[in-house]
Amino acid sequence: MINSPNERKRAVGVGLIGFGTIGRGVVRLLLDRSGSLTKGEEFYLQLRRIADLDITTPRGIDLPQGILTTDANEVVEARDIDVVIELIGGIEPARTYILKALQAGKGVVTANKALLAKCGDELFETSERNRAALFFEGSVCGGIPIVRSLRQGLVANRIDSIYGILNGTTNYILTKMTEEDEDFEESLRKAQERGYAEADPTLDITGQDAAQKLSILLRIGLGLPCRASDIFCEGIETITRKDIRYAKELGYTIKLLAVAKRTDGGVEARVHPAMIPSGTLLANVRDEFNAVELVGDAVGTQVFYGKGAGEMPTASAVVADVVELAKQKSQGTVAGLGVKPRDETLQGLLPMDEVKMPYYFRFTVIDRPGVLAEIARLLSREQISIASVIQKVRAEGSTVPIIMMTHQALERAMKTAIKNIDKLPAVKAKTQVIRVEELQR
Amino acid sequence: MINSPNERKRAVGVGLIGFGTIGRGVVRLLLDRSGSLTKGEEFYLQLRRIADLDITTPRGIDLPQGILTTDANEVVEARDIDVVIELIGGIEPARTYILKALQAGKGVVTANKALLAKCGDELFETSERNRAALFFEGSVCGGIPIVRSLRQGLVANRIDSIYGILNGTTNYILTKMTEEDEDFEESLRKAQERGYAEADPTLDITGQDAAQKLSILLRIGLGLPCRASDIFCEGIETITRKDIRYAKELGYTIKLLAVAKRTDGGVEARVHPAMIPSGTLLANVRDEFNAVELVGDAVGTQVFYGKGAGEMPTASAVVADVVELAKQKSQGTVAGLGVKPRDETLQGLLPMDEVKMPYYFRFTVIDRPGVLAEIARLLSREQISIASVIQKVRAEGSTVPIIMMTHQALERAMKTAIKNIDKLPAVKAKTQVIRVEELQR
Repeated sequence: MINSPNERKRAVGVGLIGFGTIGRGVVRLLLDRSGSLTKGEEFYLQLRRIADLDITTPRGIDLPQGILTTDANEVVEARDIDVVIELIGGIEPARTYILKALQAGKGVVTANKALLAKCGDELFETSERNRAALFFEGSVCGGIPIVRSLRQGLVANRIDSIYGILNGTTNYILTKMTEEDEDFEESLRKAQERGYAEADPTLDITGQDAAQKLSILLRIGLGLPCRASDIFCEGIETITRKDIRYAKELGYTIKLLAVAKRTDGGVEARVHPAMIPSGTLLANVRDEFNAVELVGDAVGTQVFYGKGAGEMPTASAVVADVVELAKQKSQGTVAGLGVKPRDETLQGLLPMDEVKMPYYFRFTVIDRPGVLAEIARLLSREQISIASVIQKVRAEGSTVPIIMMTHQALERAMKTAIKNIDKLPAVKAKTQVIRVEELQR
Repeated sequence: MINSPNERKRAVGVGLIGFGTIGRGVVRLLLDRSGSLTKGEEFYLQLRRIADLDITTPRGIDLPQGILTTDANEVVEARDIDVVIELIGGIEPARTYILKALQAGKGVVTANKALLAKCGDELFETSERNRAALFFEGSVCGGIPIVRSLRQGLVANRIDSIYGILNGTTNYILTKMTEEDEDFEESLRKAQERGYAEADPTLDITGQDAAQKLSILLRIGLGLPCRASDIFCEGIETITRKDIRYAKELGYTIKLLAVAKRTDGGVEARVHPAMIPSGTLLANVRDEFNAVELVGDAVGTQVFYGKGAGEMPTASAVVADVVELAKQKSQGTVAGLGVKPRDETLQGLLPMDEVKMPYYFRFTVIDRPGVLAEIARLLSREQISIASVIQKVRAEGSTVPIIMMTHQALERAMKTAIKNIDKLPAVKAKTQVIRVEELQR
């Protein structure tokens, strides 16, 4: 029923808080795979308690008797539980339960990106102080072993940059907009119908979800503790099918990109829609898939690709953490507290105004002589040089679009220039600005 | 000079056998990164001995005095060495040194794919019997943490398939043939000039190198111990620019693909040139890069991409193993002996004759009525059905090419049909056969 005990093996007690979708996937794997998960190891996993406010809805799993409780304290305080899995999400009471479990010396596995992005310092300090490991592979990119790879596989590298497609919902929407020439609202509605977007999709489409994940990657990849709220963040709500079409003409694909990059002035950390060259691997990450492209100074460029969310992919990541933590518990060690120490050589975050990159502009103007000259003058005044211009002959009502790509320019200069341009009488709508990321093939 | 000791930290002694290119990269990382590699840990790494037959050629590294020796036994027998790195390559004496080190209870890190592919059973048994860990991340795909991901990150999954571009030399050659419309010999010569191919490129271009790596992935990914020599293997020598052009017309890209796949009849394991749809991620893996696409039953499809060879990428993988092993050594544990136990539910390898897939044929025939009918009849006799035919009007001397794609067919049937077709008087050259792998976008 529970895991078949074995005389030569030690049991490691596992408790779960939060029996929702991911929780169900985790329980399935723990019960169905009990043999194979720890085959060849000197311990086995025993799921001893599951806490959830709702313990009556059937989850379609044959559970051991008496394992369910509505009191999460029965998990974090129980002496027979060595590893606590937190899957309730949100800040409280998740934070309190995790802190309690760590203070009790238990290992904790969580997939709670919002909590890590907001209270990471407190959680990791508590983990270290109590010599109790905190693992969180499921918090970033679901089943992709990116946390483990950064912590262990790439430990010999200085990570110089990370480019991530970290949010499946927005990537699904942008893929549909691109491949089916749909508007944002239409694609969003379809994503909701098909279960790829929540009823309230705000966290996803505004980029906040991606910023939370990026803050975790910054901490473990670059050794820069930061919060999601420190990261510049812009969503995909303003992207139109027109922009996607023009991008295509220019050889680019629009993705919601999360960027972390070491520069001389500090670390860039930003989440926003970006035009990336269509031939690159990241441009070909479609639908709800996630990917992380990183550059390590020893390994060079690496890409990790897979499903970033969903019951079983995330459960796979959580269970991998449980197995590794249980192995340590069974041996009485605390190897790997799960977070890269702060890199003191880093100068902290570079303010967004100081970031330099090329831009795509779509101006909406009255079709009369001299407009382009006026725009060009205002750009030039801010030291922004133009790389290419497409002036579309087809009018959109009484206006025509002018599409422009710039060379590298400062964000601050761009903002000033666009503010001034949007005041021109000939400019009839807010100028669309999309940042360009010249990823290499 | 060596790693700065720290009173609170324990030293873990490291010894290296083989001070070639990769060895130099490893030593660089161990010396230059001593602080960051084990920051936050309770141990530090101390490189105590380097053995190589050549200890006089300068490697451009400032080494601690007296660290070099020509006698590898001074590494594997030394009491002050906890972790032995083997980087001499080849079967002997590498095998003997690794066995000695394991028997002495030392942890071993190796990047020796040839040895693992040939003597894996013996090495892993010795590792287990002596409770001495054997790590080998650097043996497959250089710096890509694929071994670690299969062993740990994806531990909750049954791995159903693995598709790999595991050899950088052949991928570089095929990329040049595709993008610059070159012949095989021309691209090979350029690859040699640029250091992407050895003077004797046999191991790479015949697919044997990829088969060695695939045998390791089969062992750790699917739990199927096997040797490289058990794996069907065909190289890229016979691929012509014509085939690459026709593939492009049909929407495919030719790659040297390593395939491991669970089927009802057994495990497919094969290395050969394959036509894959051009829109897929693997088709877009260019130049000397490697990639592994796998399907786990919980996580779904994942792709890992990066540099598969070279001094620093491979050194990065080796050093990651050293750090993990040293952590265990410092705690007196033997967590993770590095290899997945045999999966007894597997039926072993499926004979190549039993494998089913679609094929691409390029027939070289005399341009006269009835030839296509004769070919079609011989295919039909073997139950091979045709998916599409392109008959080229342009003659090549006195012959014309007929390009054909089939539906799924048995390898055995294909071989019989092609043998008979090649005996037809109208068929003027050996028919080109390329297997097709319908990877999903």
